[in-house]
Amino acid sequence: MTTESWVNETLYAEWGQRFLVKRELAHVKSEFQDIRIFESHLHGRVMLLDGVVQITEADEFVYQEMLAHVPLLAHGDARRVLIIGAGDGGVLRRVLQHRTVEKAVMVEIDGEVIRLAKEHLPAIGGDAWTDPRATVIVGDGIDHVRKAEAGSYDVIIVDSTDPIGVGEVLFTDEFYANCARILSDRGLVVNQCGVPFMQAEELRETSLRRAKVFPDVFAYVAAVPTYVGGFMTLGWAAKDAGCRQVDVAEIRRRADVAGVLDTTRYWTPEIHVGAFNLPPYIGMHLPRG
Amino acid sequence: MTTESWVNETLYAEWGQRFLVKRELAHVKSEFQDIRIFESHLHGRVMLLDGVVQITEADEFVYQEMLAHVPLLAHGDARRVLIIGAGDGGVLRRVLQHRTVEKAVMVEIDGEVIRLAKEHLPAIGGDAWTDPRATVIVGDGIDHVRKAEAGSYDVIIVDSTDPIGVGEVLFTDEFYANCARILSDRGLVVNQCGVPFMQAEELRETSLRRAKVFPDVFAYVAAVPTYVGGFMTLGWAAKDAGCRQVDVAEIRRRADVAGVLDTTRYWTPEIHVGAFNLPPYIGMHLPRG
Repeated sequence: MTTESWVNETLYAEWGQRFLVKRELAHVKSEFQDIRIFESHLHGRVMLLDGVVQITEADEFVYQEMLAHVPLLAHGDARRVLIIGAGDGGVLRRVLQHRTVEKAVMVEIDGEVIRLAKEHLPAIGGDAWTDPRATVIVGDGIDHVRKAEAGSYDVIIVDSTDPIGVGEVLFTDEFYANCARILSDRGLVVNQCGVPFMQAEELRETSLRRAKVFPDVFAYVAAVPTYVGGFMTLGWAAKDAGCRQVDVAEIRRRADVAGVLDTTRYWTPEIHVGAFNLPPYIGMHLPRG
Repeated sequence: MTTESWVNETLYAEWGQRFLVKRELAHVKSEFQDIRIFESHLHGRVMLLDGVVQITEADEFVYQEMLAHVPLLAHGDARRVLIIGAGDGGVLRRVLQHRTVEKAVMVEIDGEVIRLAKEHLPAIGGDAWTDPRATVIVGDGIDHVRKAEAGSYDVIIVDSTDPIGVGEVLFTDEFYANCARILSDRGLVVNQCGVPFMQAEELRETSLRRAKVFPDVFAYVAAVPTYVGGFMTLGWAAKDAGCRQVDVAEIRRRADVAGVLDTTRYWTPEIHVGAFNLPPYIGMHLPRG
Protein backbone atom coordinates (compact mmCIF):
# COMPACT_ATOMS: atom_id res chain seq x y z
CA MET A 1 0.00 0.00 0.00
CA THR A 2 1.29 3.45 -0.94
CA THR A 3 1.10 6.15 1.65
CA GLU A 4 -0.55 9.20 0.12
CA SER A 5 0.91 12.63 0.65
CA TRP A 6 0.32 16.22 -0.43
CA VAL A 7 2.53 18.24 -2.74
CA ASN A 8 2.34 21.98 -2.10
CA GLU A 9 3.29 24.23 -4.99
CA THR A 10 5.95 26.64 -3.74
CA LEU A 11 5.58 29.43 -6.30
CA TYR A 12 4.28 31.87 -3.69
CA ALA A 13 5.29 31.73 -0.05
CA GLU A 14 1.88 32.59 1.34
CA TRP A 15 -0.72 31.09 -1.00
CA GLY A 16 -0.84 28.26 -3.47
CA GLN A 17 -2.33 25.05 -4.69
CA ARG A 18 -1.76 21.55 -3.41
CA PHE A 19 -2.26 18.11 -4.92
CA LEU A 20 -2.83 14.81 -3.20
CA VAL A 21 -0.25 12.47 -4.71
CA LYS A 22 -1.49 9.09 -5.87
CA ARG A 23 1.87 7.77 -6.97
CA GLU A 24 5.30 9.33 -7.32
CA LEU A 25 6.76 8.64 -10.77
CA ALA A 26 10.04 10.52 -10.84
CA HIS A 27 11.95 12.95 -8.69
CA VAL A 28 15.27 13.93 -10.25
CA LYS A 29 17.78 16.68 -9.65
CA SER A 30 19.06 17.58 -13.11
CA GLU A 31 21.98 19.85 -13.92
CA PHE A 32 19.49 22.73 -14.06
CA GLN A 33 16.57 22.09 -11.74
CA ASP A 34 14.51 19.83 -9.55
CA ILE A 35 12.13 17.76 -11.73
CA ARG A 36 9.20 15.94 -10.19
CA ILE A 37 6.43 13.95 -11.87
CA PHE A 38 3.58 12.32 -10.01
CA GLU A 39 0.17 10.83 -10.62
CA SER A 40 -2.61 12.96 -9.12
CA HIS A 41 -6.25 12.11 -8.45
CA LEU A 42 -7.96 14.81 -10.49
CA HIS A 43 -5.36 16.13 -12.96
CA GLY A 44 -3.72 13.00 -14.33
CA ARG A 45 0.04 13.20 -14.25
CA VAL A 46 1.63 16.44 -13.06
CA MET A 47 5.15 17.78 -13.67
CA LEU A 48 6.81 20.33 -11.40
CA LEU A 49 10.08 22.15 -12.00
CA ASP A 50 11.67 23.62 -8.87
CA GLY A 51 8.35 23.12 -7.09
CA VAL A 52 6.23 24.97 -9.67
CA VAL A 53 3.54 23.24 -11.74
CA GLN A 54 4.52 23.16 -15.42
CA ILE A 55 1.97 20.83 -16.88
CA THR A 56 -0.83 18.47 -15.95
CA GLU A 57 -2.34 15.94 -18.33
CA ALA A 58 -5.85 17.19 -17.55
CA ASP A 59 -5.49 20.85 -18.43
CA GLU A 60 -2.46 21.07 -20.71
CA PHE A 61 -4.76 21.62 -23.67
CA VAL A 62 -5.64 25.14 -22.53
CA TYR A 63 -2.10 26.40 -22.35
CA GLN A 64 -0.74 24.55 -25.40
CA GLU A 65 -3.61 25.51 -27.68
CA MET A 66 -3.37 29.17 -26.79
CA LEU A 67 0.43 29.28 -26.93
CA ALA A 68 0.63 27.54 -30.32
CA HIS A 69 -2.52 28.27 -32.33
CA VAL A 70 -2.83 31.99 -31.57
CA PRO A 71 0.56 33.14 -32.95
CA LEU A 72 0.52 30.74 -35.90
CA LEU A 73 -2.96 31.69 -37.06
CA ALA A 74 -2.49 35.38 -36.29
CA HIS A 75 0.58 35.36 -38.52
CA GLY A 76 -1.21 33.46 -41.27
CA ASP A 77 1.85 32.16 -43.09
CA ALA A 78 4.00 30.69 -40.34
CA ARG A 79 6.08 28.01 -42.00
CA ARG A 80 9.21 28.10 -39.83
CA VAL A 81 8.63 28.01 -36.08
CA LEU A 82 11.14 28.16 -33.22
CA ILE A 83 10.11 26.82 -29.80
CA ILE A 84 12.27 27.58 -26.78
CA GLY A 85 11.74 25.47 -23.71
CA ALA A 86 8.59 23.31 -23.70
CA GLY A 87 10.59 20.15 -23.00
CA ASP A 88 7.41 18.16 -22.44
CA GLY A 89 6.71 18.29 -26.19
CA GLY A 90 3.22 19.70 -25.90
CA VAL A 91 3.83 22.94 -27.81
CA LEU A 92 5.75 21.04 -30.49
CA ARG A 93 2.78 18.73 -30.96
CA ARG A 94 0.30 21.60 -31.34
CA VAL A 95 2.60 23.48 -33.73
CA LEU A 96 3.00 20.40 -35.95
CA GLN A 97 -0.75 19.93 -36.01
CA HIS A 98 -0.66 22.80 -38.52
CA ARG A 99 -0.05 21.11 -41.85
CA THR A 100 1.09 24.50 -43.13
CA VAL A 101 4.18 24.36 -40.87
CA GLU A 102 7.27 23.18 -42.72
CA LYS A 103 9.85 23.25 -39.96
CA ALA A 104 9.65 23.33 -36.16
CA VAL A 105 12.86 23.70 -34.19
CA MET A 106 12.64 23.11 -30.45
CA VAL A 107 15.49 24.10 -28.15
CA GLU A 108 15.22 22.84 -24.57
CA ILE A 109 18.10 23.36 -22.20
CA ASP A 110 17.37 20.40 -19.94
CA GLY A 111 17.58 17.00 -21.62
CA GLU A 112 16.28 15.38 -18.47
CA VAL A 113 12.94 17.14 -18.90
CA ILE A 114 12.61 15.68 -22.39
CA ARG A 115 13.69 12.22 -21.26
CA LEU A 116 11.29 12.14 -18.31
CA ALA A 117 8.39 13.61 -20.32
CA LYS A 118 8.83 10.95 -23.02
CA GLU A 119 8.85 8.25 -20.34
CA HIS A 120 6.07 9.45 -18.04
CA LEU A 121 3.99 11.89 -20.13
CA PRO A 122 4.09 10.25 -23.57
CA ALA A 123 0.71 11.59 -24.70
CA ILE A 124 1.78 15.22 -24.27
CA GLY A 125 4.28 15.14 -27.13
CA GLY A 126 2.69 12.22 -28.94
CA ASP A 127 3.95 11.71 -32.49
CA ALA A 128 5.65 15.10 -32.54
CA TRP A 129 8.98 13.68 -31.36
CA THR A 130 9.37 11.67 -34.58
CA ASP A 131 7.72 14.10 -37.01
CA PRO A 132 10.15 14.65 -39.93
CA ARG A 133 9.47 18.40 -39.74
CA ALA A 134 10.74 18.55 -36.13
CA THR A 135 14.27 19.25 -34.96
CA VAL A 136 14.74 18.79 -31.22
CA ILE A 137 17.88 20.35 -29.82
CA VAL A 138 19.07 19.93 -26.25
CA GLY A 139 20.85 23.21 -25.79
CA ASP A 140 20.78 26.86 -24.86
CA GLY A 141 17.95 28.89 -26.39
CA ILE A 142 19.89 32.14 -25.82
CA ASP A 143 22.77 30.77 -27.81
CA HIS A 144 20.45 29.51 -30.54
CA VAL A 145 18.83 32.90 -31.14
CA ARG A 146 22.29 34.55 -31.04
CA LYS A 147 23.59 32.32 -33.82
CA ALA A 148 20.52 31.78 -36.00
CA GLU A 149 20.39 33.47 -39.39
CA ALA A 150 18.51 36.74 -39.83
CA GLY A 151 14.93 36.24 -40.95
CA SER A 152 15.04 32.48 -40.49
CA TYR A 153 11.82 32.07 -38.45
CA ASP A 154 8.26 33.34 -38.81
CA VAL A 155 7.12 32.70 -35.23
CA ILE A 156 9.02 32.18 -31.97
CA ILE A 157 7.26 30.58 -29.00
CA VAL A 158 8.97 30.89 -25.64
CA ASP A 159 7.55 28.36 -23.19
CA SER A 160 9.79 29.01 -20.24
CA THR A 161 9.54 28.87 -16.51
CA ASP A 162 8.99 32.19 -14.75
CA PRO A 163 11.82 34.73 -14.85
CA ILE A 164 13.46 33.14 -11.86
CA GLY A 165 15.97 30.31 -11.98
CA VAL A 166 16.88 28.74 -15.30
CA GLY A 167 14.30 30.75 -17.28
CA GLU A 168 15.56 34.21 -16.24
CA VAL A 169 17.90 34.73 -19.21
CA LEU A 170 14.95 34.34 -21.60
CA PHE A 171 13.63 37.74 -20.58
CA THR A 172 16.63 39.99 -21.34
CA ASP A 173 17.09 42.83 -23.83
CA GLU A 174 19.69 40.86 -25.75
CA PHE A 175 17.38 37.89 -26.12
CA TYR A 176 14.52 39.96 -27.53
CA ALA A 177 16.86 41.87 -29.88
CA ASN A 178 18.02 38.56 -31.30
CA CYS A 179 14.43 37.35 -31.62
CA ALA A 180 13.64 40.44 -33.71
CA ARG A 181 16.69 39.85 -35.88
CA ILE A 182 16.01 36.18 -36.65
CA LEU A 183 12.30 36.76 -37.36
CA SER A 184 11.05 37.41 -40.88
CA ASP A 185 9.38 40.71 -41.85
CA ARG A 186 5.98 39.96 -40.33
CA GLY A 187 7.38 37.78 -37.57
CA LEU A 188 6.25 37.67 -33.96
CA VAL A 189 7.23 36.16 -30.64
CA VAL A 190 4.97 35.01 -27.81
CA ASN A 191 5.99 33.95 -24.36
CA GLN A 192 4.42 33.00 -21.09
CA CYS A 193 4.18 36.01 -18.78
CA GLY A 194 2.76 34.61 -15.59
CA VAL A 195 -0.50 35.31 -13.79
CA PRO A 196 -0.75 39.11 -13.46
CA PHE A 197 -3.10 39.02 -10.48
CA MET A 198 -0.10 37.61 -8.59
CA GLN A 199 2.88 38.44 -10.80
CA ALA A 200 2.15 41.82 -12.40
CA GLU A 201 5.83 42.77 -12.39
CA GLU A 202 6.61 39.93 -14.75
CA LEU A 203 4.20 41.23 -17.38
CA ARG A 204 5.18 44.87 -16.87
CA GLU A 205 8.93 44.46 -16.96
CA THR A 206 9.18 41.99 -19.79
CA SER A 207 6.72 44.04 -21.88
CA LEU A 208 8.98 47.09 -21.51
CA ARG A 209 11.90 45.02 -22.75
CA ARG A 210 9.97 43.69 -25.72
CA ALA A 211 8.91 47.24 -26.58
CA LYS A 212 12.55 48.25 -27.09
CA VAL A 213 12.81 46.14 -30.24
CA PHE A 214 9.26 45.38 -31.44
CA PRO A 215 6.78 47.98 -32.70
CA ASP A 216 3.72 46.09 -31.46
CA VAL A 217 3.85 44.88 -27.85
CA PHE A 218 0.76 43.51 -26.18
CA ALA A 219 -0.52 40.43 -24.35
CA TYR A 220 -3.39 38.00 -24.53
CA VAL A 221 -5.05 35.92 -21.86
CA ALA A 222 -5.94 32.29 -21.13
CA ALA A 223 -7.62 30.78 -18.08
CA VAL A 224 -5.40 27.81 -17.28
CA PRO A 225 -6.84 25.74 -14.41
CA THR A 226 -3.55 24.87 -12.69
CA TYR A 227 -1.78 28.18 -13.28
CA VAL A 228 -3.86 29.41 -10.41
CA GLY A 229 -4.80 33.04 -9.88
CA GLY A 230 -7.15 34.03 -12.70
CA PHE A 231 -6.00 34.77 -16.22
CA MET A 232 -2.44 34.07 -17.20
CA THR A 233 -0.98 36.36 -19.83
CA LEU A 234 0.92 35.38 -22.90
CA GLY A 235 3.28 38.12 -24.02
CA TRP A 236 3.05 39.33 -27.60
CA ALA A 237 5.74 41.16 -29.59
CA ALA A 238 5.23 41.59 -33.31
CA LYS A 239 6.73 43.48 -36.22
CA ASP A 240 3.27 44.03 -37.73
CA ALA A 241 0.41 45.22 -35.54
CA GLY A 242 -2.01 43.81 -38.09
CA CYS A 243 -1.35 40.30 -36.78
CA ARG A 244 -3.53 40.90 -33.75
CA GLN A 245 -6.32 42.59 -35.67
CA VAL A 246 -7.37 39.69 -37.86
CA ASP A 247 -11.13 39.08 -37.62
CA VAL A 248 -12.95 35.93 -36.53
CA ALA A 249 -13.91 34.83 -40.05
CA GLU A 250 -10.35 35.03 -41.34
CA ILE A 251 -8.94 33.23 -38.28
CA ARG A 252 -11.49 30.48 -38.85
CA ARG A 253 -10.53 30.21 -42.52
CA ARG A 254 -6.84 29.96 -41.63
CA ALA A 255 -7.50 27.32 -38.98
CA ASP A 256 -9.44 25.30 -41.50
CA VAL A 257 -6.59 25.49 -44.02
CA ALA A 258 -4.08 24.53 -41.32
CA GLY A 259 -6.21 21.57 -40.26
CA VAL A 260 -6.71 22.62 -36.64
CA LEU A 261 -10.33 23.82 -36.76
CA ASP A 262 -12.65 21.69 -34.58
CA THR A 263 -9.70 19.84 -33.02
CA THR A 264 -9.54 22.06 -29.95
CA ARG A 265 -11.08 22.08 -26.49
CA TYR A 266 -10.29 25.66 -25.45
CA TRP A 267 -9.23 27.62 -28.54
CA THR A 268 -11.90 28.80 -30.97
CA PRO A 269 -11.73 31.64 -33.50
CA GLU A 270 -13.92 33.73 -31.18
CA ILE A 271 -11.76 33.01 -28.15
CA HIS A 272 -8.64 33.77 -30.19
CA VAL A 273 -9.90 37.25 -31.05
CA GLY A 274 -11.42 37.86 -27.62
CA ALA A 275 -8.20 36.93 -25.80
CA PHE A 276 -6.73 40.30 -26.78
CA ASN A 277 -9.47 42.15 -24.88
CA LEU A 278 -7.72 42.60 -21.57
CA PRO A 279 -9.41 43.34 -18.25
CA PRO A 280 -8.25 46.78 -17.06
CA TYR A 281 -6.44 45.23 -14.09
CA ILE A 282 -4.18 43.46 -16.63
CA GLY A 283 -4.04 46.06 -19.40
CA MET A 284 -2.72 48.68 -16.97
CA HIS A 285 0.61 46.84 -16.84
CA LEU A 286 1.33 47.17 -20.54
CA PRO A 287 3.42 50.00 -21.99
CA ARG A 288 1.31 52.93 -23.20
CA GLY A 289 0.93 52.78 -26.99
CA MET B 1 3.24 37.03 18.74
CA THR B 2 0.66 35.30 16.59
CA THR B 3 1.45 31.80 15.39
CA GLU B 4 0.78 31.61 11.67
CA SER B 5 -1.06 28.69 10.19
CA TRP B 6 -2.40 27.50 6.86
CA VAL B 7 -6.05 27.24 5.88
CA ASN B 8 -6.72 24.57 3.27
CA GLU B 9 -9.86 25.01 1.19
CA THR B 10 -11.85 21.79 1.46
CA LEU B 11 -14.00 22.08 -1.70
CA TYR B 12 -12.27 19.11 -3.33
CA ALA B 13 -10.82 16.22 -1.37
CA GLU B 14 -7.73 15.78 -3.52
CA TRP B 15 -6.72 19.22 -4.77
CA GLY B 16 -7.19 22.77 -3.64
CA GLN B 17 -5.79 26.09 -2.60
CA ARG B 18 -4.32 27.11 0.72
CA PHE B 19 -3.75 30.44 2.40
CA LEU B 20 -1.27 31.38 5.07
CA VAL B 21 -3.33 33.06 7.78
CA LYS B 22 -2.01 36.36 9.08
CA ARG B 23 -4.73 36.88 11.65
CA GLU B 24 -7.96 35.09 12.43
CA LEU B 25 -10.87 37.56 12.61
CA ALA B 26 -13.94 35.42 13.14
CA HIS B 27 -14.86 31.77 13.26
CA VAL B 28 -18.53 31.23 13.96
CA LYS B 29 -20.93 28.34 13.65
CA SER B 30 -24.20 29.90 12.54
CA GLU B 31 -27.58 28.19 12.34
CA PHE B 32 -26.73 27.34 8.72
CA GLN B 33 -23.00 26.99 8.26
CA ASP B 34 -19.45 27.42 9.45
CA ILE B 35 -18.32 31.02 8.80
CA ARG B 36 -14.67 31.94 8.93
CA ILE B 37 -12.97 35.25 8.16
CA PHE B 38 -9.22 35.79 8.31
CA GLU B 39 -6.60 38.23 7.16
CA SER B 40 -4.34 36.73 4.49
CA HIS B 41 -0.97 37.90 3.18
CA LEU B 42 -1.78 38.31 -0.50
CA HIS B 43 -5.59 38.48 -0.78
CA GLY B 44 -6.61 40.85 1.98
CA ARG B 45 -9.42 39.48 4.08
CA VAL B 46 -10.92 36.14 3.09
CA MET B 47 -14.31 34.65 3.98
CA LEU B 48 -15.01 30.92 3.89
CA LEU B 49 -18.37 29.21 4.31
CA ASP B 50 -18.16 25.54 5.26
CA GLY B 51 -14.49 25.57 4.28
CA VAL B 52 -15.04 27.02 0.78
CA VAL B 53 -13.72 30.44 -0.26
CA GLN B 54 -16.60 32.85 -0.90
CA ILE B 55 -14.83 36.14 -1.24
CA THR B 56 -11.46 37.80 -0.84
CA GLU B 57 -10.93 41.54 -0.73
CA ALA B 58 -8.29 41.35 -3.44
CA ASP B 59 -10.23 39.64 -6.20
CA GLU B 60 -13.89 40.19 -5.36
CA PHE B 61 -14.12 42.77 -8.14
CA VAL B 62 -13.91 40.08 -10.84
CA TYR B 63 -16.84 38.05 -9.59
CA GLN B 64 -19.05 40.96 -8.50
CA GLU B 65 -18.58 42.96 -11.69
CA MET B 66 -19.40 40.00 -13.89
CA LEU B 67 -22.32 38.82 -11.78
CA ALA B 68 -23.94 42.27 -11.57
CA HIS B 69 -23.03 44.31 -14.66
CA VAL B 70 -23.53 41.60 -17.29
CA PRO B 71 -27.23 40.81 -16.60
CA LEU B 72 -28.20 44.42 -15.89
CA LEU B 73 -26.60 45.81 -19.04
CA ALA B 74 -27.67 42.85 -21.19
CA HIS B 75 -31.24 43.51 -20.13
CA GLY B 76 -30.96 47.24 -20.77
CA ASP B 77 -33.89 48.36 -18.64
CA ALA B 78 -33.39 46.57 -15.34
CA ARG B 79 -35.05 48.73 -12.75
CA ARG B 80 -36.12 46.10 -10.20
CA VAL B 81 -33.43 43.61 -9.17
CA LEU B 82 -33.64 40.65 -6.81
CA ILE B 83 -30.44 39.30 -5.26
CA ILE B 84 -30.48 35.96 -3.48
CA GLY B 85 -27.58 35.16 -1.20
CA ALA B 86 -24.54 37.46 -1.48
CA GLY B 87 -24.61 38.25 2.23
CA ASP B 88 -21.29 40.05 2.01
CA GLY B 89 -23.04 42.92 0.21
CA GLY B 90 -20.74 42.98 -2.81
CA VAL B 91 -23.36 42.23 -5.45
CA LEU B 92 -25.76 44.70 -3.87
CA ARG B 93 -23.10 47.40 -4.09
CA ARG B 94 -22.41 46.70 -7.80
CA VAL B 95 -26.13 46.59 -8.62
CA LEU B 96 -26.74 49.93 -6.91
CA GLN B 97 -23.86 51.48 -8.81
CA HIS B 98 -26.34 51.53 -11.72
CA ARG B 99 -28.21 54.79 -11.27
CA THR B 100 -30.90 53.28 -13.52
CA VAL B 101 -31.81 50.73 -10.81
CA GLU B 102 -34.83 51.81 -8.77
CA LYS B 103 -35.11 48.91 -6.35
CA ALA B 104 -32.75 46.18 -5.20
CA VAL B 105 -34.06 43.50 -2.87
CA MET B 106 -31.50 41.21 -1.28
CA VAL B 107 -32.56 38.02 0.48
CA GLU B 108 -29.84 36.28 2.48
CA ILE B 109 -30.74 33.31 4.63
CA ASP B 110 -27.92 33.69 7.12
CA GLY B 111 -27.99 36.89 9.15
CA GLU B 112 -24.63 36.00 10.66
CA VAL B 113 -22.97 36.34 7.24
CA ILE B 114 -24.34 39.87 6.92
CA ARG B 115 -23.36 40.79 10.46
CA LEU B 116 -19.81 39.46 10.11
CA ALA B 117 -19.33 40.97 6.64
CA LYS B 118 -20.40 44.40 7.90
CA GLU B 119 -17.97 44.08 10.80
CA HIS B 120 -14.93 42.58 9.08
CA LEU B 121 -15.40 43.28 5.36
CA PRO B 122 -16.99 46.74 5.41
CA ALA B 123 -15.58 47.83 2.04
CA ILE B 124 -17.29 44.97 0.18
CA GLY B 125 -20.80 46.29 0.73
CA GLY B 126 -19.76 49.91 1.29
CA ASP B 127 -22.64 52.38 1.17
CA ALA B 128 -25.02 49.82 -0.33
CA TRP B 129 -26.33 48.75 3.09
CA THR B 130 -27.86 52.17 3.68
CA ASP B 131 -28.88 53.03 0.09
CA PRO B 132 -32.58 54.04 0.12
CA ARG B 133 -33.15 51.84 -2.95
CA ALA B 134 -32.01 48.72 -1.06
CA THR B 135 -34.16 46.31 0.95
CA VAL B 136 -32.14 43.72 2.84
CA ILE B 137 -34.13 40.74 4.06
CA VAL B 138 -32.75 38.01 6.30
CA GLY B 139 -34.85 35.12 5.11
CA ASP B 140 -35.41 32.26 2.74
CA GLY B 141 -34.88 33.04 -0.95
CA ILE B 142 -37.02 30.05 -1.96
CA ASP B 143 -39.88 31.41 0.03
CA HIS B 144 -39.39 34.90 -1.35
CA VAL B 145 -39.63 33.79 -4.99
CA ARG B 146 -42.64 31.62 -4.10
CA LYS B 147 -44.53 34.57 -2.66
CA ALA B 148 -43.38 37.45 -4.86
CA GLU B 149 -45.83 38.94 -7.35
CA ALA B 150 -45.75 37.86 -10.98
CA GLY B 151 -43.61 40.13 -13.13
CA SER B 152 -42.23 42.04 -10.17
CA TYR B 153 -38.50 41.86 -11.05
CA ASP B 154 -36.47 42.48 -14.22
CA VAL B 155 -33.31 40.63 -13.19
CA ILE B 156 -32.62 37.98 -10.55
CA ILE B 157 -29.05 37.35 -9.40
CA VAL B 158 -28.42 34.17 -7.44
CA ASP B 159 -25.11 34.36 -5.61
CA SER B 160 -25.24 31.12 -3.72
CA THR B 161 -22.79 28.55 -2.48
CA ASP B 162 -22.40 25.43 -4.62
CA PRO B 163 -25.39 23.07 -4.81
CA ILE B 164 -24.34 21.33 -1.64
CA GLY B 165 -25.35 22.31 1.87
CA VAL B 166 -27.46 25.42 2.37
CA GLY B 167 -27.38 26.43 -1.31
CA GLU B 168 -28.82 23.20 -2.71
CA VAL B 169 -32.46 24.30 -2.74
CA LEU B 170 -31.57 27.21 -5.01
CA PHE B 171 -31.07 24.84 -7.93
CA THR B 172 -34.44 23.08 -8.06
CA ASP B 173 -37.18 23.01 -10.73
CA GLU B 174 -39.59 24.78 -8.43
CA PHE B 175 -37.15 27.58 -7.75
CA TYR B 176 -36.55 28.25 -11.43
CA ALA B 177 -40.27 28.07 -12.24
CA ASN B 178 -40.92 30.74 -9.64
CA CYS B 179 -38.06 32.85 -11.00
CA ALA B 180 -39.69 32.75 -14.44
CA ARG B 181 -43.05 33.70 -12.95
CA ILE B 182 -41.84 36.71 -10.96
CA LEU B 183 -39.69 38.07 -13.80
CA SER B 184 -41.07 40.61 -16.25
CA ASP B 185 -41.45 39.86 -19.96
CA ARG B 186 -37.82 40.30 -20.93
CA GLY B 187 -36.51 39.16 -17.54
CA LEU B 188 -33.50 36.99 -16.88
CA VAL B 189 -31.77 35.17 -14.05
CA VAL B 190 -28.06 34.54 -13.57
CA ASN B 191 -26.42 32.33 -10.99
CA GLN B 192 -23.01 31.04 -10.10
CA CYS B 193 -22.45 27.62 -11.65
CA GLY B 194 -19.06 26.59 -10.36
CA VAL B 195 -15.81 25.90 -12.16
CA PRO B 196 -16.64 23.44 -14.96
CA PHE B 197 -13.10 22.07 -15.25
CA MET B 198 -13.74 20.59 -11.80
CA GLN B 199 -17.53 20.74 -11.41
CA ALA B 200 -19.02 20.09 -14.85
CA GLU B 201 -22.05 18.32 -13.37
CA GLU B 202 -23.10 21.51 -11.66
CA LEU B 203 -23.28 23.40 -14.95
CA ARG B 204 -24.87 20.52 -16.83
CA GLU B 205 -27.58 19.62 -14.35
CA THR B 206 -28.64 23.10 -13.38
CA SER B 207 -28.73 24.16 -17.06
CA LEU B 208 -31.15 21.33 -17.82
CA ARG B 209 -33.39 22.55 -15.02
CA ARG B 210 -33.29 26.15 -16.21
CA ALA B 211 -34.16 24.95 -19.73
CA LYS B 212 -37.46 23.55 -18.48
CA VAL B 213 -38.84 27.04 -17.87
CA PHE B 214 -36.69 29.50 -19.84
CA PRO B 215 -36.43 29.63 -23.63
CA ASP B 216 -32.83 30.85 -23.64
CA VAL B 217 -30.39 28.93 -21.42
CA PHE B 218 -26.69 29.54 -21.67
CA ALA B 219 -23.66 30.48 -19.57
CA TYR B 220 -20.87 33.01 -19.56
CA VAL B 221 -17.39 32.87 -18.10
CA ALA B 222 -15.16 34.81 -15.72
CA ALA B 223 -11.62 34.05 -14.56
CA VAL B 224 -11.84 34.56 -10.80
CA PRO B 225 -8.41 34.19 -9.16
CA THR B 226 -9.54 32.42 -5.99
CA TYR B 227 -12.26 30.27 -7.55
CA VAL B 228 -9.41 28.09 -8.68
CA GLY B 229 -9.56 25.79 -11.70
CA GLY B 230 -9.81 28.01 -14.78
CA PHE B 231 -12.98 29.76 -15.85
CA MET B 232 -15.98 29.77 -13.58
CA THR B 233 -19.35 29.82 -15.30
CA LEU B 234 -22.28 32.04 -14.53
CA GLY B 235 -25.54 30.43 -15.51
CA TRP B 236 -27.88 32.37 -17.77
CA ALA B 237 -31.62 31.84 -18.21
CA ALA B 238 -33.59 34.45 -20.13
CA LYS B 239 -37.04 34.94 -21.62
CA ASP B 240 -35.56 36.82 -24.58
CA ALA B 241 -32.51 35.39 -26.37
CA GLY B 242 -31.78 38.88 -27.67
CA CYS B 243 -30.37 39.87 -24.28
CA ARG B 244 -27.15 38.00 -24.92
CA GLN B 245 -26.76 39.27 -28.49
CA VAL B 246 -26.36 42.96 -27.74
CA ASP B 247 -23.24 44.35 -29.44
CA VAL B 248 -20.25 46.06 -27.83
CA ALA B 249 -21.28 49.60 -28.83
CA GLU B 250 -24.74 49.27 -27.32
CA ILE B 251 -23.39 47.69 -24.12
CA ARG B 252 -20.96 50.60 -23.82
CA ARG B 253 -23.77 53.12 -24.32
CA ARG B 254 -25.90 51.42 -21.66
CA ALA B 255 -22.97 51.31 -19.22
CA ASP B 256 -22.40 55.00 -19.76
CA VAL B 257 -26.06 55.79 -19.09
CA ALA B 258 -26.01 53.61 -15.98
CA GLY B 259 -22.86 55.31 -14.71
CA VAL B 260 -20.68 52.21 -14.51
CA LEU B 261 -18.45 52.73 -17.57
CA ASP B 262 -14.77 53.18 -16.63
CA THR B 263 -15.43 52.23 -13.01
CA THR B 264 -14.44 48.58 -13.45
CA ARG B 265 -11.25 46.56 -13.18
CA TYR B 266 -12.36 43.37 -14.97
CA TRP B 267 -15.60 44.09 -16.84
CA THR B 268 -15.44 46.00 -20.11
CA PRO B 269 -17.98 46.07 -22.96
CA GLU B 270 -15.66 43.80 -24.98
CA ILE B 271 -15.24 41.34 -22.12
CA HIS B 272 -18.99 41.38 -21.54
CA VAL B 273 -19.69 40.30 -25.12
CA GLY B 274 -16.72 37.90 -25.28
CA ALA B 275 -17.72 36.12 -22.06
CA PHE B 276 -20.47 34.32 -23.97
CA ASN B 277 -17.92 32.69 -26.28
CA LEU B 278 -17.39 29.45 -24.42
CA PRO B 279 -14.41 27.12 -24.81
CA PRO B 280 -15.67 23.80 -26.22
CA TYR B 281 -14.75 21.99 -22.99
CA ILE B 282 -17.35 24.19 -21.26
CA GLY B 283 -19.93 24.58 -24.03
CA MET B 284 -20.31 20.81 -24.30
CA HIS B 285 -22.11 20.77 -20.95
CA LEU B 286 -24.95 23.03 -22.05
CA PRO B 287 -28.27 21.72 -23.38
CA ARG B 288 -28.35 21.49 -27.19
CA GLY B 289 -30.29 24.43 -28.60
